[in-house]
Amino acid sequence: MASPLKITLFFFSIFTIFFISPITSKLHPLDSLSPSEFLLVRAIVTQSYPTTHTNSPSTLVVIGVDQKTRELIVDLSIRSIVSDKLYGGLGYPLLTIEEQEGAVDLTLKYEPFLASIKRRGLNISEVTCSTQTIGWYGKVKTTRELKIICFYLNGTINMYVRPIEGMTIVVDIEQMKISEFVDRAVPPMPKATGTDYRASKITPPFGPRFNAAPPTPPGQKSFEFDGNVVSWANWKFHLGFDARVGPVISQASFYDADKKKYRQIMYRSFISELFVPYQDPTEECVVDGYYAGQDGKPVKVQDVMCIFERHSGDVMWRHTEAELRDQKIREARPDISLVVRMVATVGNYDYVLDWEFKPTGSIKFGVGLTGVLEVKAVPYTNTDEIKEEIYGTLVTDNTIGVNHDHFLTYHLDLDVDGDANSFVKTHLITKRVKDKNIPRKSYWNFEHEIVKTESDAQIQLGLNSPELLVVNPNKKTKPGNTVGYRLVPGSAVGPLLATDDYPQIRGAFTNYNVWVTPYNKSEKWAGGRYVDQSRGDDTLAVWTEKNRNIENKDIVVWYTMGFHHVPCQEDFPMMPTLSGGFELKPTNFFEYSPVLKTVPPQHLSWGNCTN
Amino acid sequence: MASPLKITLFFFSIFTIFFISPITSKLHPLDSLSPSEFLLVRAIVTQSYPTTHTNSPSTLVVIGVDQKTRELIVDLSIRSIVSDKLYGGLGYPLLTIEEQEGAVDLTLKYEPFLASIKRRGLNISEVTCSTQTIGWYGKVKTTRELKIICFYLNGTINMYVRPIEGMTIVVDIEQMKISEFVDRAVPPMPKATGTDYRASKITPPFGPRFNAAPPTPPGQKSFEFDGNVVSWANWKFHLGFDARVGPVISQASFYDADKKKYRQIMYRSFISELFVPYQDPTEECVVDGYYAGQDGKPVKVQDVMCIFERHSGDVMWRHTEAELRDQKIREARPDISLVVRMVATVGNYDYVLDWEFKPTGSIKFGVGLTGVLEVKAVPYTNTDEIKEEIYGTLVTDNTIGVNHDHFLTYHLDLDVDGDANSFVKTHLITKRVKDKNIPRKSYWNFEHEIVKTESDAQIQLGLNSPELLVVNPNKKTKPGNTVGYRLVPGSAVGPLLATDDYPQIRGAFTNYNVWVTPYNKSEKWAGGRYVDQSRGDDTLAVWTEKNRNIENKDIVVWYTMGFHHVPCQEDFPMMPTLSGGFELKPTNFFEYSPVLKTVPPQHLSWGNCTN
Repeated sequence: MASPLKITLFFFSIFTIFFISPITSKLHPLDSLSPSEFLLVRAIVTQSYPTTHTNSPSTLVVIGVDQKTRELIVDLSIRSIVSDKLYGGLGYPLLTIEEQEGAVDLTLKYEPFLASIKRRGLNISEVTCSTQTIGWYGKVKTTRELKIICFYLNGTINMYVRPIEGMTIVVDIEQMKISEFVDRAVPPMPKATGTDYRASKITPPFGPRFNAAPPTPPGQKSFEFDGNVVSWANWKFHLGFDARVGPVISQASFYDADKKKYRQIMYRSFISELFVPYQDPTEECVVDGYYAGQDGKPVKVQDVMCIFERHSGDVMWRHTEAELRDQKIREARPDISLVVRMVATVGNYDYVLDWEFKPTGSIKFGVGLTGVLEVKAVPYTNTDEIKEEIYGTLVTDNTIGVNHDHFLTYHLDLDVDGDANSFVKTHLITKRVKDKNIPRKSYWNFEHEIVKTESDAQIQLGLNSPELLVVNPNKKTKPGNTVGYRLVPGSAVGPLLATDDYPQIRGAFTNYNVWVTPYNKSEKWAGGRYVDQSRGDDTLAVWTEKNRNIENKDIVVWYTMGFHHVPCQEDFPMMPTLSGGFELKPTNFFEYSPVLKTVPPQHLSWGNCTN
Repeated sequence: MASPLKITLFFFSIFTIFFISPITSKLHPLDSLSPSEFLLVRAIVTQSYPTTHTNSPSTLVVIGVDQKTRELIVDLSIRSIVSDKLYGGLGYPLLTIEEQEGAVDLTLKYEPFLASIKRRGLNISEVTCSTQTIGWYGKVKTTRELKIICFYLNGTINMYVRPIEGMTIVVDIEQMKISEFVDRAVPPMPKATGTDYRASKITPPFGPRFNAAPPTPPGQKSFEFDGNVVSWANWKFHLGFDARVGPVISQASFYDADKKKYRQIMYRSFISELFVPYQDPTEECVVDGYYAGQDGKPVKVQDVMCIFERHSGDVMWRHTEAELRDQKIREARPDISLVVRMVATVGNYDYVLDWEFKPTGSIKFGVGLTGVLEVKAVPYTNTDEIKEEIYGTLVTDNTIGVNHDHFLTYHLDLDVDGDANSFVKTHLITKRVKDKNIPRKSYWNFEHEIVKTESDAQIQLGLNSPELLVVNPNKKTKPGNTVGYRLVPGSAVGPLLATDDYPQIRGAFTNYNVWVTPYNKSEKWAGGRYVDQSRGDDTLAVWTEKNRNIENKDIVVWYTMGFHHVPCQEDFPMMPTLSGGFELKPTNFFEYSPVLKTVPPQHLSWGNCTN
C-alpha cells in the first residue's frame, strides 16, 4: 500500500569503514555493522524520519521521502545525523525486497491480470511472479518503476522454463500501483516434463552416483578466525560482507618469513558490478541493483559465505632429477589453497564467486555460472519450422535459450608493499639479431612501460597482450627488480553491443577489460551509485574522462571478466557450471620462491602424480 | 664407442595400432606392444640386422645403418619384415638414451675438457653434463650431432642453476667423437646457497606445513580397469602409452542413458609436439625429440601415468530458488572428475599433463609447468650494473632466468557421434535493431560458418574470436540442432619469433592456435617424424599447404597452447606450477543436461558452498 509520506531506507554499508565507532566493541575497524548498530542507526534516523521499514543498515543512509532521494550521514559515536542533503541526480536507489514483494502481491490481485490468466486457461494458484529492473532507454522523464514477469509452475518448480509471455506489467513503486498493463497474443506454454531438478523428482534413467568427499579432510583444523580476520598459512585478511557487493576482502597481506613481517598486497577487493545484457532486443535485464541486495538483511548474512581449504589434486611444484645417474631425486608439494566462496542467486542464475588464496602468494578470482537459463516461449518444436530471426537456441519444444552476456567488474584496490603503486605494461617485443655470427635471426625481449594516466591504462585484451603489473616503484628486490604483482587475465571477452545503445551506455565500464584509476572513495560501483534507470552519467567510463595521473599513487585496478553465452541443449533445464577467472600473482615481490620451504605433509601414500 | 657397422633401432610405437597381432593375447587392438612383443620385434629385426642396442619397440622400426636411416615394417603375425626402405629425407630420428649417455661419458673423459675444468678451479667429481639437440640454422650439410652442456653441483643437486658457461661441446653421434670443442672466457659461477630443493636440505625459516588429503577419499572405489580400457561414471576410453608422445587416449565415448548406448566423441588424442624456443639468441634448445623419449623403455612405462578421481570442491551445478516464498529449494551437485596424468620431466622442466573427464561430457586438457628454470651465468648482482642487453630477468646473484616460450600442440582426432565431422566457426555478430518501436539499438546474434578447407580453419585466437565447434553434419538433435563438441580455448598466445627464423620455420605449426586437417595416418607429429635437425619441410604448416577439403570428413583438430615466460624471482630456484588448458565441451550433443539426473552423494555435512 502507498502511504502519503512513505519513507524508505537504503543503506550502503561499504561506507561503514570510514567510521570507527568507539561505543561499540569492534574487533576491527573494517567490520561491518553489528545487528545492534543496525538498530542504532535506524533509531537515530527515525527520530527525524518516521520510517515504515528498513533493509540493510549502514552509516551512509539514503532515504526516499515523498519520491525524493535524500543522503544522510549518521555518526554513531555521537548518535546523530551529521549530514542530510537532497540527491539531485538521475537514477534511483536499489529496490528493497519489500518493494519487490509488494509489487508482486499487487499484480497477483490485479483484476485485468487475473482475467488474462483465466483467458489463457491457466490456474492462478500455479502462477508465480518476479520483478525486473526496467533499465533506461532514452526517456526524458522517468518514474521509479519495476517490471513484473510471471511464470507457470503447474508440474515443475523450475519456474523460469515456463514464462507466461505476451504481457507487459509495470508497477510504479512510489505510488505502489500498476502503471502499465498490456496483454498481447497468447503464445504457447513450454512443457513442464523433465524440468524439475530436485533429486527427489528425477526419473529414470538416472545418472551415476559419485563418492562423497569433502574438499578438506574431516576433522583437520585449517584456518583461524580472529573476529573477522582470517589467518591461513602465510595469509591474513579481513573478511567483510556488504549488502550490495557481497564479500569484501580487505587488508590481504602475506607473512614474509625472511623479512619477518606481514607485507601488504591488497587493501580491498569486491565485485563492483554485474552486467547481463540479454540479446533479445524486445527484453532486457540489468541485474545490477538487484544483485546481492537479496541477502541484505543482517539475519541473512551469516550463511551466504563460506571458507574451506581446497586439496585439488594439483601440484604446487615438483621436480624429478633424472640426469644424476647415481641418485634418485623426486621432490613434490601438493597444491593446497584457502577458498572464500559466496553463492549469489540472482533470480534464475546462481553465481559461485570464489576468492582463492594460494601459498605461492597468488590470489585467484573465480566465477562459476550455474542455475537456470533465461528462456523465451516460441511456437516451434524444430529448427526447420523457424522462418523469423530468433535470439538464441531452440533448447527443447517451444523454448528458446536466449543469447546473453555476463560481465563481472572487480574493484581491486591493490597496495603492493605500501599504497603508492604504479601500473606497468610489459611489452614483449620481437627483435632482429644484429650479430652476423649468430645463426638466429630473431628473438623477443620485454620492455616495461610505466603508465602515466588513466587513458593509457584502458586495455582490451587480445592476442599477445602486454603483461600487466602493479608495482611499488619505491621498493626494489635485492637484485634490483621492482616489487610487483601481476594481473593474469582470463579469456579475452569484450562487449558486442553498439556503444551508442542504452544498455551499453549504462554498461560503458565494460568497454575495456582493464581500467586503472587513482583511489577515490566515491568511486566504488563501476555503474554508479544509483544504477536503477541510471543514464550512465556516473560510470567508470565517465570518471576516467578526467584522465587523472595514476603514477606512484594509491591506485585501483578495475578488471572485467566477460562471458558470451550462446545457450545449448546441455544448459537446459539446469546449467552445468560455466567457469572463468583471473589471478593476481607475485612478480619479483619475493626474493625467491615463497613455497620452496613449504614442509611436505605427512601424507597417505597416494601415488606420484598428485603429491 | 663407434663400431664400424653401428645399428640403432628407433621405434614409433604409435603406429602399432595399425597392426593387430593374433599371436598375442591382446585385450584390445589399441594396446601398446607387450614386453614379449618388444622382444619378438627385436628378434625379427636382428635376423637381418645384428643390433647393438634398442630402446622403445614398435612395429614401424626405423634403424640407422652406417649413418643412413632405414624404415622397416615388421608384421608380428607372420614374424617377418614386410617392408624395408632407405629414408632419403632430411632430419634425423630421435636420440636414444644410450647415445646421450655415451656422449656425456665421452665428454667427461675428454682431455681438453678436463683441462678447462681444472683451469676454472672446479673439481671434476662435482661436474655433471647433459645433452641438447642442436637444431638447424641453415647449414647445407648436417651430421648427426648433439650438444653437451655441463653443470657444477658442489653444494647443491639443483644442477641447472649452476651452468658451466663459456664452453661449446659438440659430439658426432655416428662416429661417437667430439666434433667441436671451444673454450672461451671464464664467467662467474652462481652460488649454490639456497638452491637445493629437497625437504631434507631446506633451512629455517620454514614455510607452513599443510594438512594431508588425498584427492580421492581413501578406500573408495572409483574407476574400473578392463585391460587398458578405463570406465568411470558415463565415460569409457582406452589408455595407451607411446614412447614419444606419452599418454594416448583413444576411443573416448560417453554412455547416453536415454539412447541406451555409448556415443563416440574422440577417436584419439595425444600431445603431438612440445616446442620451447629460448630467447637468448646465443643459445637455443628444441626439446621435441628429447621429450618423452626419456621413458621409452618398457620397464619405465609403468609409473609414468596415474589416474585418480578428483573432488575439487567446485560445483557441478546448483540452484537456490528464492522466488517461491512458501518453499525452500536448494539443489546442488559437487563437481567430480577423473584425471589421467603424466608428469613428463624434460631435463630441468617438469610438465604435468592432465586429461580430465567430467560427468558433463567435457574433457579438459591441462598443462602445469614446474621444475627448474633455464638460467645463464652473468657477472652482475644488481640490475644497476647491467649495461648490455640481457635476455631475461636477474633472479639472484650472477643469474639470469632466460626468457622463453612453451608451445604444446595437441593432436585431437575427434569422432563426434561418428567419424564424418565438420569444423564450424560460430561468429557472434553485432546487429542494429530495425524496428523503430523497440528502444534497443543493437544486439548480437550468431552465424555458423561451416569451414570447407584447411586454410579457412587456420585460426589465431584473440579478442571476441568465433566459437569453434566440431559437429557431425549428419546427426541432429530432436529440436534440430547439429550435434557437436565445442573447443573452448585457453588464453590466446602466439609465436613472437620472425617467421623466417630457423626455429620458427621448424616450429611453424605454432603459427596458428588452431588448424584442422583431414585424417592422414602419416600426419602424427606437427613437427615431422624426423625432428632432430629438421628443416621444417615435414610440418603441419607444410601439409596444410595442400589446402585439402575438411567438410564432412574424418578430421583432426590441432590445438596449440602457448605460454610466454618472462621469469621472475618467485620462479627461482624451483618454479611454482604455471597452469594452462583448454576444453572440449558437448554442445547440442545431448538432448538435455547430462548431469541433471546425477544422484547426489550421501555426503558428510560440509556446508552449502561446496556441494
